[in-house]
Amino acid sequence: MNKILIFGAGKSTSYLIPYLLEKGAAHDLQLTIADINLENAQKACMDSERCQAVKLDIFAEEERGKAIASHDLVISMLPARLHINIARDCLKYEKHMVTASYVSAEMEALHEEAQEKGLLFLNEIGVDPGIDHMSAMQVIDQIRSKGGKMLLFESFTGGLVAPESDNNLWNYKFTWNPRNVVVAGQGGVAKFIQEGKYKYIPYNKLFRRTEFMEIEGYGWFEGYANRDSLKYRDAYGLQDALTLYRGTMRRVGYSRAWNMFVQLGMTDDSFTLEGSEDMTYREFVNAFLPYSPTDSIELKLRHYLKIDQDDIMWQKLVDLDLFSNTKTIGIMDATPAQALQKILEEKWTLDPEDKDMIVMYHKFGYEINGVKKQLDSHMVVIGKDQRYTAMSKTVGLPVGIATLQILKGNFKLTGVRIPIYKEIYDPVMKELKEYDIEFSEFEVPYLGYNPDNVAG
Amino acid sequence: MNKILIFGAGKSTSYLIPYLLEKGAAHDLQLTIADINLENAQKACMDSERCQAVKLDIFAEEERGKAIASHDLVISMLPARLHINIARDCLKYEKHMVTASYVSAEMEALHEEAQEKGLLFLNEIGVDPGIDHMSAMQVIDQIRSKGGKMLLFESFTGGLVAPESDNNLWNYKFTWNPRNVVVAGQGGVAKFIQEGKYKYIPYNKLFRRTEFMEIEGYGWFEGYANRDSLKYRDAYGLQDALTLYRGTMRRVGYSRAWNMFVQLGMTDDSFTLEGSEDMTYREFVNAFLPYSPTDSIELKLRHYLKIDQDDIMWQKLVDLDLFSNTKTIGIMDATPAQALQKILEEKWTLDPEDKDMIVMYHKFGYEINGVKKQLDSHMVVIGKDQRYTAMSKTVGLPVGIATLQILKGNFKLTGVRIPIYKEIYDPVMKELKEYDIEFSEFEVPYLGYNPDNVAG
Repeated sequence: MNKILIFGAGKSTSYLIPYLLEKGAAHDLQLTIADINLENAQKACMDSERCQAVKLDIFAEEERGKAIASHDLVISMLPARLHINIARDCLKYEKHMVTASYVSAEMEALHEEAQEKGLLFLNEIGVDPGIDHMSAMQVIDQIRSKGGKMLLFESFTGGLVAPESDNNLWNYKFTWNPRNVVVAGQGGVAKFIQEGKYKYIPYNKLFRRTEFMEIEGYGWFEGYANRDSLKYRDAYGLQDALTLYRGTMRRVGYSRAWNMFVQLGMTDDSFTLEGSEDMTYREFVNAFLPYSPTDSIELKLRHYLKIDQDDIMWQKLVDLDLFSNTKTIGIMDATPAQALQKILEEKWTLDPEDKDMIVMYHKFGYEINGVKKQLDSHMVVIGKDQRYTAMSKTVGLPVGIATLQILKGNFKLTGVRIPIYKEIYDPVMKELKEYDIEFSEFEVPYLGYNPDNVAG
Repeated sequence: MNKILIFGAGKSTSYLIPYLLEKGAAHDLQLTIADINLENAQKACMDSERCQAVKLDIFAEEERGKAIASHDLVISMLPARLHINIARDCLKYEKHMVTASYVSAEMEALHEEAQEKGLLFLNEIGVDPGIDHMSAMQVIDQIRSKGGKMLLFESFTGGLVAPESDNNLWNYKFTWNPRNVVVAGQGGVAKFIQEGKYKYIPYNKLFRRTEFMEIEGYGWFEGYANRDSLKYRDAYGLQDALTLYRGTMRRVGYSRAWNMFVQLGMTDDSFTLEGSEDMTYREFVNAFLPYSPTDSIELKLRHYLKIDQDDIMWQKLVDLDLFSNTKTIGIMDATPAQALQKILEEKWTLDPEDKDMIVMYHKFGYEINGVKKQLDSHMVVIGKDQRYTAMSKTVGLPVGIATLQILKGNFKLTGVRIPIYKEIYDPVMKELKEYDIEFSEFEVPYLGYNPDNVAG
């Protein structure tokens, strides 16, 4: 029997657990769902006899250790900062571990010991990070195996609202953690390489330096740069690539509008607003505008941000009730970012019948036999409803598929790893196709950024 | 005999030490100048028999203690972070202390003990902070003594180049620490109150929200907001004032031009540039611009910042040799702010014959007998040369004057203090007039920001 312990029965497990239960008979699986809330764990078990729910506090060391000791593999679907406690126990009791989170420095530090004990701690096997690594490395390795040399790699991912539920002017709703959306791009300059030149975008220009891309059947998207475009340069073996750019996808027009909040200072999370609790939305706006005894807040804002009266940007603000003098922030000592989140959540929360959408777009530029070529690939996954979301599906299924592969002994790798290896991405990407998670690839003319080698 | 120990013989002592030596005979003073560099200390003594120079490392605890123990009063002209070591010794050996620096939290913590021992640790008695406190409190206390109620207080200070030495398009040269100028406004939102409303300006708008003011005979200036406009609200007793604004003065047009650097990201001090050592100024600029195979860096920048071809902003950049492809940054692992400082220092360093200028401008709005009034006051001090600067004069003389007052027993205050008290500011401001450091005051119509009580 293969005994799997899953920490956390949150919304990102709505595909993972059914997947493992569906495979249960064929692979003789026994699942334990451990959650601080027993009821959640019980619900997640879906009355399966192959599943037991237990109430477990992640900080209860003894209980946690006992639970881990009695299983073969541990999946942590908890918030990333909690993984390390589990990882240390997994080392102690010699169990494999799987997470969908970024490898922290603490996790990375366990690499050698995990390797010595023959354990695989597989991280970053969700969607972003996860499917992005696997889908990119699959193409990059194919190009290399044919003798091609990588020149350019760009990669964009977005968690958006599905076209059929896309009914606001921003073409955006919150499908995951709203806070991350509000503070996106803060905490450091965006750094990347274009045609061998390092480029830096400060926060105040981040949302004005977007790139555009089209996905047939879904129209146009834009991407703004992530902070960390060079993060996987070594992992992907792209040290010689001339262009490396990683970004976040939005519908065209979102970034230009979001930039209004950035320019006003409304996304700042570093200080608290005086009197935020009783502050109306209108007063919130006015706190970022010069004082005037005579002019309206509306005109002050239009002038400050140079918004023409017929600019659609304006209606995007109006649609958020940003100028309401009755609605209040209602949060004590709120930062501007918290206040803005409150305002946005009122309008950008998914309706019960709304569906989300995950989009991913890669560009691979390479040279082969003296010819420069480009391959683009993209993936679109649309959720079923608010429980069976595209996000949950694209995070949970790679975790589940990789888990089974580990239990079957199909991965030879040990240590702390991310899924950039053929032995991992091949079986996972192959099985994901059965669930309609797949990439369309198509050759395009190599664009690069410098077709004629003109000095720039 | 009154024995004074001065730590530090740096450039800010060029007025302080001659002042004390000049007063030496009348007040039976004996000075000791302690510096890590003996030669500097010796030079500062100017061959006076009332002055001895000693080499002293501020971190040599025993020596430091001995030196302090054998004097009556200690002046620290060292960098602010070093004051605390001296202050603790002053407590131990029961000596008064004077500095021109902001009161740190560590210094503040000594207040009660200093008070118990009957010691005065007088800080912030330079120009800004220093003369700003004294000149403001003198007027505020006068208004109050007549029964007036403060409505508005605005205060601006600038360290600039004197009109006769003002010969670049920026109307600016470095007269003090260049680094502080380059990173000015970073590290937090600018917060102030206008007509009872809290206002917040993010960094990316800071240099676009300036106020203007004229000083007769010197023309127009502009001010951008300091981070801390509310810092002295309680100290000044201005809890009920409707408008509080503190700012930094520049010549008109400086801030709009400086904003170009902010928008590009060139003032960022949080990351290092790849290959900064061999990077040309031109490459530095290009690192903040989108890649183009065909367009010039010049046109990309004009387009990015929307600079018309006949806009004087453009010439301000050209005059800095910002587009040079021969000049290099020459600093390893430089942050953008460090690189920008290097570029600016080449053009903004004072020539040997150049003079600096300190300007200060206060606005006091108040209500008396039901009538709203406003008093503006300003001060202009121009340096003699690069040794006898306006900065050194306006920092050193208040320190020296206050020191004599303490030794004469004229201040009854004890504890850690700043010069907001009549017993301090009256004699100091009076004596400063003898050195042509004085304010012109004049009544203006009360402007406030809301003469007609129209909703804003």
